[in-house]
Amino acid sequence: MGYAELHQFTQSVFIKMGCSEADALQAAGVLLAADLSGVDSHGVARLEGYVCLWEAGRINVQPDIKIIHESPSTATIDGDAGLGLVVAPFAMKTAIEKAKIAGTGWVAVQNSNHFGIAGIHAKMALAEDMIGLSMTNASALVAPTFSRERMLGTNPIAVAIPSGEEPPFVADMATTTVANGKLEILQRAEKEAPIGWVQNAYGQGTNDAAILKEGGALLPLGSDREHSSHKGYALGSIVDIFSAVLSGAAYGPWAPPFPAYVPLPQNPPGKGLGHFFGAMRIDAFRPASDFKENMDLWIRRFRKAQPVDAKQEVLIPGDPERLAEEHRKVHGIPLVPKVCQSLQALAKRFDIGDSGFLN
Amino acid sequence: MGYAELHQFTQSVFIKMGCSEADALQAAGVLLAADLSGVDSHGVARLEGYVCLWEAGRINVQPDIKIIHESPSTATIDGDAGLGLVVAPFAMKTAIEKAKIAGTGWVAVQNSNHFGIAGIHAKMALAEDMIGLSMTNASALVAPTFSRERMLGTNPIAVAIPSGEEPPFVADMATTTVANGKLEILQRAEKEAPIGWVQNAYGQGTNDAAILKEGGALLPLGSDREHSSHKGYALGSIVDIFSAVLSGAAYGPWAPPFPAYVPLPQNPPGKGLGHFFGAMRIDAFRPASDFKENMDLWIRRFRKAQPVDAKQEVLIPGDPERLAEEHRKVHGIPLVPKVCQSLQALAKRFDIGDSGFLN
Repeated sequence: MGYAELHQFTQSVFIKMGCSEADALQAAGVLLAADLSGVDSHGVARLEGYVCLWEAGRINVQPDIKIIHESPSTATIDGDAGLGLVVAPFAMKTAIEKAKIAGTGWVAVQNSNHFGIAGIHAKMALAEDMIGLSMTNASALVAPTFSRERMLGTNPIAVAIPSGEEPPFVADMATTTVANGKLEILQRAEKEAPIGWVQNAYGQGTNDAAILKEGGALLPLGSDREHSSHKGYALGSIVDIFSAVLSGAAYGPWAPPFPAYVPLPQNPPGKGLGHFFGAMRIDAFRPASDFKENMDLWIRRFRKAQPVDAKQEVLIPGDPERLAEEHRKVHGIPLVPKVCQSLQALAKRFDIGDSGFLN
Repeated sequence: MGYAELHQFTQSVFIKMGCSEADALQAAGVLLAADLSGVDSHGVARLEGYVCLWEAGRINVQPDIKIIHESPSTATIDGDAGLGLVVAPFAMKTAIEKAKIAGTGWVAVQNSNHFGIAGIHAKMALAEDMIGLSMTNASALVAPTFSRERMLGTNPIAVAIPSGEEPPFVADMATTTVANGKLEILQRAEKEAPIGWVQNAYGQGTNDAAILKEGGALLPLGSDREHSSHKGYALGSIVDIFSAVLSGAAYGPWAPPFPAYVPLPQNPPGKGLGHFFGAMRIDAFRPASDFKENMDLWIRRFRKAQPVDAKQEVLIPGDPERLAEEHRKVHGIPLVPKVCQSLQALAKRFDIGDSGFLN
């Protein structure tokens, strides 16, 4: 599937939902950044999910996104229940503008929705010679250490760091051992999950990749207590608190679910999903050229670290996604039949004419 | 061992090394915060190690710690090869002062030494109604995913978050599956390590708790690729880059070692160890009282998450260390014979009279 056609189609769907041209363009670009970088679970496969949330009245396509609290280096933003795909870039831009003057900028967001992959927002800082940070809470699928209850989302953290001649360092990770998308891939292939990825409703480790449908939970990074799952639990908690307690969004088990058919948790202590963004100007710490030269040295030294197996060199965070992007820009984005069908249904429903490429 | 006597003794040692009264008082308090909170590996057990570093000319006991670069919300500090136990509180205070005016404060430190436990510095922000962050790089003991070479330190991250009536949330964690101290405990007890903690010099998993003496390495949080060790590797890398590349310290395999008998890496690309600190004023995002009320609710809800085993309730980050501190303040700090002997040797060497309590 060619990227340009898929982008045009996605933008058309957002326009049919009632988004402005500009918002639809941005939302399509952010959503498809996932497909381009190989994170198929978070891209156009979710387009139908966003439409369902809109139909359920949980997404406001004409949001009045605004700053409700600020200081020289901070802001809190009310996303007005808009698409996270639009709210997040607004918030990250705000962080960058703050950083231009104050050296750093930090923005907490309440009342938002899912924002796609975390990395795309963090990467906005790179062109400004800034380090970018991005995180979000999400609906509860993860059990804390010692618990059998789902209390946290997969709560990703992304950090993008500029370099000189080398490609930038871009880490983008769920704070769980694996994200839910990896389980979905195993389910489709009818394969088992390794022990350490999920537990059942009683809190016992299991190989069942479909256990979340039966009250199971994802495990925090670290997998079990002996391998320090309490650290993954702490990281996911920090993301939840920065994104939602600091901003006034719904946190922990009250975070709103992505599937529109799942009822909203009752009596949430805040509004919608929460995000947290940061931008740090490199030259607020040292001259940017010095930093970039040293980042190049850092990257080259780590790439040459002695490998366990000569056939697999050490990777720098961001390598796999960048390679996927280079390949997919040329060769197109592979879509599984189920995703193609969901897009065809959207084309029919919204009467989008130029969708022959989906057949 | 009573805390007060141990503190007095530790302060005396730092004074004999040539520290000012004020610096010695501070260094003793920071070092012993580890013993108080149950992290025996990072406390007074290392006092002899600091003395050896000083004897080797690697610690400057009369440092001229100064800001060498700044913006409204940031500063870079040169620690002048001082004790990290003194440089770090100076840097964290700078972050707090910046936050008072700019909303947040972020301080990168070059040319420092080991700063004790990360949590004690992050916790300085709590009394100011701020969130505190603290991290440091350290000498290389950790192999990146796919590598058999030691490239990163255990590079801890600490985050302290204020609450209202509940005790604060304080996460303090090495970005490895376990810190080196846990291996030392196993070695003393002649026990094996679980698979997933360490690898041998060829990059293969092993139970040998003493494998670091034979070219082995600690594993990043996640343990192996299947359980996402690349995330622990990325976290440790972010700590290295924020602490050392941003500040101008020595990074990656060039970070200076703690044992004074280990030669310094040749041609380091920066000076000494690096740290990174942050302080975020809560009311730069929302009224502090609102935040604290919600943190209390967050903490209470997570503490009541359904346990796997009714006998082990879900913990909040910071619980184990706080409980240890409450106990040890009353009952004293247990010292193993080897540590007692090292303190007796220091008492003799520095002719510290009031050390009868060590016998």
